[in-house]
Amino acid sequence: MAGIAFGRFDDSFSLGSLKAYLAEFISTLLFVFAGVGSAIAYNKITADAALDPEGLVAIAICHAFALFVAVAIGANISGGHVNPAVTFGLALGGQITILTGIFYWIAQLLGSIAACFLLKAVTGGLAIPVHGLAAGVGSVQGVVMEIIITFALVYTVYATAADPKKGSLGTIAPIAIGFIVGANILAAGPFSGGSMNPARSFGPAVASGDYHDNWIYWVGPLFGGGLAGLIYGNVFMHSEHAPLSSDHF
Amino acid sequence: MAGIAFGRFDDSFSLGSLKAYLAEFISTLLFVFAGVGSAIAYNKITADAALDPEGLVAIAICHAFALFVAVAIGANISGGHVNPAVTFGLALGGQITILTGIFYWIAQLLGSIAACFLLKAVTGGLAIPVHGLAAGVGSVQGVVMEIIITFALVYTVYATAADPKKGSLGTIAPIAIGFIVGANILAAGPFSGGSMNPARSFGPAVASGDYHDNWIYWVGPLFGGGLAGLIYGNVFMHSEHAPLSSDHF
Amino acid sequence: MAGIAFGRFDDSFSLGSLKAYLAEFISTLLFVFAGVGSAIAYNKITADAALDPEGLVAIAICHAFALFVAVAIGANISGGHVNPAVTFGLALGGQITILTGIFYWIAQLLGSIAACFLLKAVTGGLAIPVHGLAAGVGSVQGVVMEIIITFALVYTVYATAADPKKGSLGTIAPIAIGFIVGANILAAGPFSGGSMNPARSFGPAVASGDYHDNWIYWVGPLFGGGLAGLIYGNVFMHSEHAPLSSDHF
Amino acid sequence: MAGIAFGRFDDSFSLGSLKAYLAEFISTLLFVFAGVGSAIAYNKITADAALDPEGLVAIAICHAFALFVAVAIGANISGGHVNPAVTFGLALGGQITILTGIFYWIAQLLGSIAACFLLKAVTGGLAIPVHGLAAGVGSVQGVVMEIIITFALVYTVYATAADPKKGSLGTIAPIAIGFIVGANILAAGPFSGGSMNPARSFGPAVASGDYHDNWIYWVGPLFGGGLAGLIYGNVFMHSEHAPLSSDHF
Repeated sequence: MAGIAFGRFDDSFSLGSLKAYLAEFISTLLFVFAGVGSAIAYNKITADAALDPEGLVAIAICHAFALFVAVAIGANISGGHVNPAVTFGLALGGQITILTGIFYWIAQLLGSIAACFLLKAVTGGLAIPVHGLAAGVGSVQGVVMEIIITFALVYTVYATAADPKKGSLGTIAPIAIGFIVGANILAAGPFSGGSMNPARSFGPAVASGDYHDNWIYWVGPLFGGGLAGLIYGNVFMHSEHAPLSSDHF
Repeated sequence: MAGIAFGRFDDSFSLGSLKAYLAEFISTLLFVFAGVGSAIAYNKITADAALDPEGLVAIAICHAFALFVAVAIGANISGGHVNPAVTFGLALGGQITILTGIFYWIAQLLGSIAACFLLKAVTGGLAIPVHGLAAGVGSVQGVVMEIIITFALVYTVYATAADPKKGSLGTIAPIAIGFIVGANILAAGPFSGGSMNPARSFGPAVASGDYHDNWIYWVGPLFGGGLAGLIYGNVFMHSEHAPLSSDHF
Repeated sequence: MAGIAFGRFDDSFSLGSLKAYLAEFISTLLFVFAGVGSAIAYNKITADAALDPEGLVAIAICHAFALFVAVAIGANISGGHVNPAVTFGLALGGQITILTGIFYWIAQLLGSIAACFLLKAVTGGLAIPVHGLAAGVGSVQGVVMEIIITFALVYTVYATAADPKKGSLGTIAPIAIGFIVGANILAAGPFSGGSMNPARSFGPAVASGDYHDNWIYWVGPLFGGGLAGLIYGNVFMHSEHAPLSSDHF
Repeated sequence: MAGIAFGRFDDSFSLGSLKAYLAEFISTLLFVFAGVGSAIAYNKITADAALDPEGLVAIAICHAFALFVAVAIGANISGGHVNPAVTFGLALGGQITILTGIFYWIAQLLGSIAACFLLKAVTGGLAIPVHGLAAGVGSVQGVVMEIIITFALVYTVYATAADPKKGSLGTIAPIAIGFIVGANILAAGPFSGGSMNPARSFGPAVASGDYHDNWIYWVGPLFGGGLAGLIYGNVFMHSEHAPLSSDHF
């Protein structure tokens, strides 16, 4: 059975680990810059109109394409998590140690915050849109929505990237990981916003100072991602293959 | 010649088979949640406007991306059918036994139903849109439309995934399977709805209690998918390679 | 140097060749059904409005996705030409014999015609839109536009599929072939229509009886595709590797 | 450490190098023809309306698809740079000699210029839209925007194509390279235009005679691309593997 692997200091501070943290920082920065940037771009060219279907398509495709690439460019260095919920789900399935995971989280959050302050600078101080519940959507509904769609994301990470039986699926894993996020934004965008990623939500909260609904994008994604890690890791993965190192790609 | 393979109980109840049923349940749940969710999202942000081209693009891309991923994450466990018409077409081509196929159907239908009740819960009880014929489209026209587009889907499953001669096509098979559904929705959406999948249509019917046109999405897809299985299996596949096991990927 | 290969009767009438013609018929039928279907769908939901950017996106994505799949599902059987201009360009580069190429053309044209009559039937007799020059676009401009974009398509077929040096590009060749057509429709759609494919244009002409501009979609694509075959075949391909058989994938 | 490799005349004038220059010319021509063509198409069907979200989606998808293909069709011949900023970033990381890089630049610029004059001809003299800063965007903001998004592009080229450790990522490298440009256009389009490519911006400037903001699309992309080359080449690439030849794919 795959369980929680406790951190080993020598592993978390090796040169390879430090490169992995830098890779997570860069990947998350570039993903959030494009993703949040597409929401700002929509607001700019529509003069802050309410979200319409073409805006939803623009934002969903941008996140799908950018996350695909962010995962791909980190894959061989850090595993391309780009998301604390992915790191958490992989830790629960025994794919990364807790200590290394904590440094991944820090790198991801710093990357997202840096992206949002850069966006503020290059757009001349335009508002950074934060994730929040749409009118009429309750907290429980929002949390459950984020649980389900993040479950889909982390399950995809396991089946296409972390599972040693993945075979040729590994080649298209980054595309699958990006595109499930694009699909889920098209469904969840007008309800919970469709975050699936605490880092994606935290950077805009910091840059705008608006932490109102931010807890939802921690609780939902971590619960959903952790559940996917426990289910996939225990039911579908061969325990004899469960690796403990961080480079699971 | 590839023909119908009769079920063997030991195979259909092995641990691997039970995992396959669970994988089909999860894949179908996640696919239907995103796909039907995108239709609800469109209705929400347009206040239930008639379908326009940007809504059609949003829904088609969501189905394309989500089905690609649903097939990919099931590929190594269950073959990633996610669709009773695919399972039926593969059974007619001798790729899966009848008994195992019946359990696949049950898992797929339960996954779709679960997805629709989850959508009802997280959207605060919004209407679950069901597949139905557009105004002016007759039953025969709708059935024939679904036959043709499901033929395309199951033919794609055979050529890129089930055929032992597939070669490097197998790597991109889940993308091809998802994208032919996206393309066909862009064509058939305003006529028959573009289902190609009895499970995709049945879950919303159960959740909404509206079974009016539901038979069309059983007859059309099963006929089209079965035809593709018979033609591809008998004309293009080498009979000496026809496997009888369920993991055809 | 790669040159024109003359047909050999035994090859063109072998069982494998007959399967290839059937595969071309099916692939072209399914591609044209989706592609032309998306144009009809746009006309239906907009009540025949003039093409707007969201309609262009819908039609371009549909063609991109459907052609990708049509090429993929034919790749191992016929090479997945799905287009007389591709067959012509491959013949000029010595990749297929003239006689086999003629049977490919017949299969492709019949597939396109069948698709358009099926569309007529399932849409209850809606108009089948034909390719034609937009207002203000001259014949020479239209022909040159089709030459350039078909050059891009057939050059892509050579570089990613026919070239023995293609390496891992072969895995994503069908995606590249579909997506260059999608990109070119987004550019050429409002001018020449963006056909790149005499079969794609001929079927709607037959089904609607409107052959007015149809010659443009023979002259342009064949000239552009032939040019790509001559340039790529003679400049970039190693003559010692030039195969003469039809299964170049 | 990977550093600047000085040109060797025999390499830059070999038959393989001459073919590489021709391949860069053709790839850049076809990419710019589709990309700029999609902007002209948008202007035509909207009667030069201001950019709206559906136009942004059309243009971003066209660039994503066309660049993917342009990179793919050049990959085995020239490496598929299609962009002076990519060539510069690869030179700074020691992947191509300075002299060969200069010939790449010339080929890329000529390809873009040829594409724009062809577009002028086939559209009957419609205006060729140039990259420029949107109203309210300052020069520094535009340059920094182009730095960040070009950094993302060239970092992607390194991680997926130039890095000898790329593994199976190499198979989907052209898709990643095209899609990061699509994502970044969705974010940066309404601010700096989202060029990331001096050749993409220079051709329209020449064809229209409008060089007003053109310097921004040299300074930003070269700085961002060079930075990516220095960081990726020195931090993430194994120096013992750094190749000096031009065919890095």
